[in-house]
Amino acid sequence: MSEQRFFNLRDETQGIFRKLAEGMTTRIFPGDNVTISVVRLAPNAAGAVHSHPQEQWGVLLEGSGVRIQDGTEHAVRAGDLWRTPGGVAHGFRAGPEGALVLDVFSPPREEYRRAGSGFEA
Amino acid sequence: MSEQRFFNLRDETQGIFRKLAEGMTTRIFPGDNVTISVVRLAPNAAGAVHSHPQEQWGVLLEGSGVRIQDGTEHAVRAGDLWRTPGGVAHGFRAGPEGALVLDVFSPPREEYRRAGSGFEA
Repeated sequence: MSEQRFFNLRDETQGIFRKLAEGMTTRIFPGDNVTISVVRLAPNAAGAVHSHPQEQWGVLLEGSGVRIQDGTEHAVRAGDLWRTPGGVAHGFRAGPEGALVLDVFSPPREEYRRAGSGFEA
Repeated sequence: MSEQRFFNLRDETQGIFRKLAEGMTTRIFPGDNVTISVVRLAPNAAGAVHSHPQEQWGVLLEGSGVRIQDGTEHAVRAGDLWRTPGGVAHGFRAGPEGALVLDVFSPPREEYRRAGSGFEA
C-alpha cells in the first residue's frame, strides 16, 4: 500500500501541478470518484468563465474574491462554501490579497490526472 | 432558482444537522454526486471506527486530532487533507482543542439527506 493518502493543502510540492490562467495555479489530487483541486490565485488574478459537466463544490480557504456563477457576482470570504451544478457557467476573481480555494469535482476530471495547463473545460 | 448554493462553513444554522457521536456533530450539504459534511468535534471527542462503500476525502480546517485509517493512527494538523477509498475502516479522535473537519463523500450519502443521528455506515 505505497499509494500516498495523507497530504497538506499548503505543501506546494504535493499534487499534480497545473497552471489554469495567469496568476492562477492548482495542485490536483485525483480520487476514484472525486477530483480535489487546491487553487492558488495571485492578488486580483481571475479565471475565465467556463463550464463542464461535472458538479463542483468550492471552499474559500484564505483571502477573498468574487465567484461568478450563473451570470451573478457573489462576493465571498474565507469559510464560504458553494455548489455549482454540472453545466453551470462559473469563474473566480481574487481580491487584493489573493485567494486559496479548495475545489471538489465529481465525477472526476479525467483530463486533470496529468500535468497540463488551462481549464480544459 | 430558489435553491441555496452559497453557504459558510462556520454558520451553524446552515446544513442538515446530525449528531454523529457524543461531542461530534455535523451539518450536511447534499449535492447531486457529492455529499459535504462539516464535522465539529469537542475536545478529545471521538467517532467509532466504521466503513462505507463511498470514497471519502477529509480536510482538517481547525484544531488537531488523530485520523485512524486502515488500522494506523495518523496525527493530523490544520490544512491536512486525506483520502479514504470506499470500504476502508476509519475514525477520528479530536485533540485537546477540538477539531473542525470538512468531509466529502462520493457517491452521495443518501441516508444523510435527512436529519438523524449516528454514522449509519
